[in-house]
Amino acid sequence: MDSFFNPSSVAIIGASRDPNKVGHVILRNLLDSGWKGKIFPVNPNAEEILNNKVYASVKDIPEPVDLAIVAVPAEIVLKVVQECGKKKIRNAIVISSGFAEIGEHKLEEKLVQLVKKLKIRMIGPNCLGTFDGFSSFDSLFLPRYRLKRPREGGISFICQSGAIGSAILDLATTQGFGFSKFASYGNAADIDESDLLEYVGNDPNTQVVCIYIEGVKDGRKFLEVARKVSKKKPIIAIKGGVTEQGNKAVMSHTGALAGSAEIYAGVFKQAGIIQAASLEEMFDFAKIFEKSMAPKGQRVQVITNGGGYGILSTDAIVKNDLKLAELSKETSSNLRKVFPERVIVKNPMDLIGDATTERYKLAMDACMADDNADVLLVVILYQTPLVTTDVVDVIIEAKRMQKKPIVVVSTGGEFTEVLRKNLEDNGIPTYTYPESAVKSIKALADYYKVR
Amino acid sequence: MDSFFNPSSVAIIGASRDPNKVGHVILRNLLDSGWKGKIFPVNPNAEEILNNKVYASVKDIPEPVDLAIVAVPAEIVLKVVQECGKKKIRNAIVISSGFAEIGEHKLEEKLVQLVKKLKIRMIGPNCLGTFDGFSSFDSLFLPRYRLKRPREGGISFICQSGAIGSAILDLATTQGFGFSKFASYGNAADIDESDLLEYVGNDPNTQVVCIYIEGVKDGRKFLEVARKVSKKKPIIAIKGGVTEQGNKAVMSHTGALAGSAEIYAGVFKQAGIIQAASLEEMFDFAKIFEKSMAPKGQRVQVITNGGGYGILSTDAIVKNDLKLAELSKETSSNLRKVFPERVIVKNPMDLIGDATTERYKLAMDACMADDNADVLLVVILYQTPLVTTDVVDVIIEAKRMQKKPIVVVSTGGEFTEVLRKNLEDNGIPTYTYPESAVKSIKALADYYKVR
Repeated sequence: MDSFFNPSSVAIIGASRDPNKVGHVILRNLLDSGWKGKIFPVNPNAEEILNNKVYASVKDIPEPVDLAIVAVPAEIVLKVVQECGKKKIRNAIVISSGFAEIGEHKLEEKLVQLVKKLKIRMIGPNCLGTFDGFSSFDSLFLPRYRLKRPREGGISFICQSGAIGSAILDLATTQGFGFSKFASYGNAADIDESDLLEYVGNDPNTQVVCIYIEGVKDGRKFLEVARKVSKKKPIIAIKGGVTEQGNKAVMSHTGALAGSAEIYAGVFKQAGIIQAASLEEMFDFAKIFEKSMAPKGQRVQVITNGGGYGILSTDAIVKNDLKLAELSKETSSNLRKVFPERVIVKNPMDLIGDATTERYKLAMDACMADDNADVLLVVILYQTPLVTTDVVDVIIEAKRMQKKPIVVVSTGGEFTEVLRKNLEDNGIPTYTYPESAVKSIKALADYYKVR
Repeated sequence: MDSFFNPSSVAIIGASRDPNKVGHVILRNLLDSGWKGKIFPVNPNAEEILNNKVYASVKDIPEPVDLAIVAVPAEIVLKVVQECGKKKIRNAIVISSGFAEIGEHKLEEKLVQLVKKLKIRMIGPNCLGTFDGFSSFDSLFLPRYRLKRPREGGISFICQSGAIGSAILDLATTQGFGFSKFASYGNAADIDESDLLEYVGNDPNTQVVCIYIEGVKDGRKFLEVARKVSKKKPIIAIKGGVTEQGNKAVMSHTGALAGSAEIYAGVFKQAGIIQAASLEEMFDFAKIFEKSMAPKGQRVQVITNGGGYGILSTDAIVKNDLKLAELSKETSSNLRKVFPERVIVKNPMDLIGDATTERYKLAMDACMADDNADVLLVVILYQTPLVTTDVVDVIIEAKRMQKKPIVVVSTGGEFTEVLRKNLEDNGIPTYTYPESAVKSIKALADYYKVR
């Protein structure tokens, strides 16, 4: 499967001179990607595209080809796949649409028979294919100026919807979460969601798996694979079409046999999968799993420079069945000695509006050292002038101790955004609102509790 | 009350040369604000600050003063308020802290007696004061480079927590929602949440009121005012401290008598107040109320260029007890004639991945004209190259027809963000995720249904 994410060489069948054609965009994207492998554009009607020699057929390529990306009209897919077989290519991503998704079941069946005969493993047809944050390889036919590629990171995303997949990859570039593997597998005629799940389960760079499915091809296989993977790393899933009308929309979209919400909820539970209530929640959760170590328990200590945020955090902790940490008497009395009288050394710990970076450092160091707190929820509102920007370094230093998870909440505009992004880039999960931070802590703590 | 938001002249008592002092920051902010009134800095130990003549006392100011901003140490607040009385100043914002919130109830009581005697109306003490998006006046002591001021708009926000207030104002500058009045009223020793609510209820620029409270000073008064206001415009509230532990944190913070979650939920319901589950939800709701006309009913038509988004939107519509619109046969057959065969003319209407701006225009025009749809939920994923940027103009044109609310969902990075912001600036509420868009539509439709 590695050849789908970091092939040594790739043939782009259907590479085109026309900048609006899928085959052109894929070639241009790959040339700009930073991926190190060899690229062979294939097109019988061109000699050179974007300064690259073009081959009339894969058979003409003088070197071995690890992976074929097929982006030709549906009616000639069988022909080019046949040629891939002759060239002994073992892996293909078929981008082309016009198969089962529009009722062309026979054509798809022929394609499946052919790849089986030729011993080719196939992703697709009717898909976006793959993206790899580490190798920088991708087969996505969406231009880089519209869909920026995210940085490398611990999230892998298996996504039945190409649109959801590409929108989220793009979103990640401004939100600061990183990806290992992404796969949009389309009709799943050969390689399906379970194969991909198993693969990312074994990928050492994957810390957490996100999966959007409209239907599962083989329920038993999925359950078996998910059970195995969820013991090693968290899986967060959304099932599209959990309502009757949503289900009908699934039928028009991927034609997947959707199954009821209850059945899926049951399967997810049995498989140890975390079911997200929304796309937003999925990536709120993914972010904390990507970046956090396992907490030892469910006791959260809140540190804040805004009293209202402390209160909303506390409400959220209680509502989500987490526990408020109670610091030891020693920790509390030590902090009271060094803090001004108005600082509230409780939980929430309110460093109040004139909090300095030094005050944050004292509070965090003390809470890191106190075994009565399992997770730190640190609210930093950058609107007040005495919190200097090096508070970011204080947080990063605290995280380096590797003692307990730290989650940061900040709400604000441009100034806040720069500092928030900086924290994300340094491995600290950040949230705009206390409620989403606490829900994510809950998902984290529960996953490791069960494990 | 207008004098608190757009005074003709203001005295800043405690204006300071020290850039770290509250009195300095308020003066500098006001000078930079674009507000048109007269500013009189007051400080017995300075002659000029930031090129402005300084007066030793308000009594020395040669012209009438409409509002005093008091930012001096607690122990001399009574003295300067006394002088305000002599100067016949009728309105004061007392920023200074050191009163009831730290147990100095007697000092606060004296202050209240004094302002009553002098017939001064007072916001504070221990507050941030006010911001007005239209007059550009503000008394906030947070520097403009850290807390950018949002543009004018239809949201008014009454906020017991200064930190939440300032963080949200700052957030609004990048999210594109606008404010009419903002007030952080601190200890509410004189003017309280109900007075402010009544005032913004009558403010013609206020389309929607957001309110964050930890406790209410006078429950009966609040209920009475809220009932009146909620008939004219929506009120969205969050009660901080709805759990027992959150309640305890309230006691340490503002000392408000918090009352149970159930009591507040009951009062909110009786008063016609929409209770938000989180800060995020509050401003998701506020955004749609700020920008949308009343829908005629609960039937939502989804238009999308990504099938997965259509499915998630459909699930959300059903889960939130909204209805899926069913377009007339005429509308549907007209659209089928002009669209390629693969476009799915149903609800969700899937314009599919190669959707052009023209396709969006046809779809929107048809849905605007069809009385079977009350609200349009338009998903635009900008990752695909055929959606040109002028789709933004198509949406804005459709909104100008003033026929039904339009809500846009787009997920993505920088490119998406520019177009999203553009829509917000042109009065279209936008959301990153379908689930939050649908929840907001539900709040909108329910408010106008009850009304």
